[in-house]
Amino acid sequence: MPSRNEKKLLRALRRRKGRVEHGLFLAEGPRLVGELLATGTAPIKVLYTQVALTDPEAGPLLARLRAEGVESESLSRRELEEFADTVNPQGVLAVAEIPRWDWHDVGSPRILVLDAVQDPGNVGTLLRTAEALGAGSVLSLPGTGDVWSPKAARAAAGSSLRLPVIAMTWDDARERLDAEGIEVWAAAPAGRPVCRGDESPGRLAIVLGNEGAGVSNRILSEAARVVAIELSGEVESLNVAIAGAILMDRLFGGERAGVD
Amino acid sequence: MPSRNEKKLLRALRRRKGRVEHGLFLAEGPRLVGELLATGTAPIKVLYTQVALTDPEAGPLLARLRAEGVESESLSRRELEEFADTVNPQGVLAVAEIPRWDWHDVGSPRILVLDAVQDPGNVGTLLRTAEALGAGSVLSLPGTGDVWSPKAARAAAGSSLRLPVIAMTWDDARERLDAEGIEVWAAAPAGRPVCRGDESPGRLAIVLGNEGAGVSNRILSEAARVVAIELSGEVESLNVAIAGAILMDRLFGGERAGVD
Repeated sequence: MPSRNEKKLLRALRRRKGRVEHGLFLAEGPRLVGELLATGTAPIKVLYTQVALTDPEAGPLLARLRAEGVESESLSRRELEEFADTVNPQGVLAVAEIPRWDWHDVGSPRILVLDAVQDPGNVGTLLRTAEALGAGSVLSLPGTGDVWSPKAARAAAGSSLRLPVIAMTWDDARERLDAEGIEVWAAAPAGRPVCRGDESPGRLAIVLGNEGAGVSNRILSEAARVVAIELSGEVESLNVAIAGAILMDRLFGGERAGVD
Repeated sequence: MPSRNEKKLLRALRRRKGRVEHGLFLAEGPRLVGELLATGTAPIKVLYTQVALTDPEAGPLLARLRAEGVESESLSRRELEEFADTVNPQGVLAVAEIPRWDWHDVGSPRILVLDAVQDPGNVGTLLRTAEALGAGSVLSLPGTGDVWSPKAARAAAGSSLRLPVIAMTWDDARERLDAEGIEVWAAAPAGRPVCRGDESPGRLAIVLGNEGAGVSNRILSEAARVVAIELSGEVESLNVAIAGAILMDRLFGGERAGVD
């Protein structure tokens, strides 16, 4: 049974403000907790229910965590549900440190910039896709959904633990991208259609915008190019995670083994 | 205030069984109801709350529906919430007929096949993306999430009203695809990597599988080719809607204006 102070912390971590304040997040489910171990960052504490002990995935994971000296504590399903998001049938919840990234961690000069992409599912899916398609980092501009919310972390399926996600203002991002010689292309329905096989700069940042409002006018006016995906049928727009996937796939090509 | 029988119908339409039985679905929100009108299929009845009358999108829509003779009825927010999914702040809910498609409605010989894709958000997003990337229809195999659930209809953003979605067994689908000379490629992580610019048949069906289990073994063994997307980083798989988007984008090319 967590102490009163622990309960207070767990409750705080359900909100973005609390996560920022403590530099911690809640990793839900054996899959994400397993990814934590795989990236070499053991959680600080693990809470579990009785059901987890016999779960084929959670059971061995708990044993491994205990072997590595991670503090673990059993609690009732009801207690766990107070701190966890709804979808956690396997009864595992870990408190873990939010990785701190800075520009030196950026791998490849292909950058995805999220300009107030709001939905946590979209944010998480975009991280997962960005890692898979060879992006070197994700810049999260003000208004973007929190990467460390349970829903975003679940959708990212571990990518948020591996791909540097850096929160910054557009002013700072622009200065840094300019200094690195990385060209900025922003996505908007009225942009110039991007075709497969089109030339694209090897050092490229793609900016995706808010689900409703799109990329902000300032970024659109400062981007080297505004690009679009030509759509068939009567579809007016694509889901932002889908549009991002297609643009990254068409424009980040070149270095990936077997592709291009 | 809906009659007792109407309430019973509305409640029934919240479940797949009820939708199949009555051939009707619930269109939530002014956007989807507007799409209904745009495709020439007026809803059977519209329910709305007072807030809808002054909403900039819902207000004019309600006026238009009344002008077209659609029966409309005002009810309290609380009453509406009994029948609507949670996310419907604009207070509009319509009862509409589910379009009936058959093979003659199929436009292009590029087909997306969903083999037990379960999550309604994924199903809806895949429909929207399939229409946008030039697919001629979607075949929904047993176990696939209902296209007409509120969540799927919302994610499809109107595409379910325009792109033929045909529910069939794999036996029937295979027979039909063979008869039409449409080659079947199934997606699986162990498949042969598909590259942009690779040759692909002009008459092609892409099969996507369940979020956990993937494409069923039988379809994998009967497909002309099993294909994959090469992934960077340590990503094990992509979300099925993202994988579908990338595969359709890479393989359905050719006929779309400005693309390829």
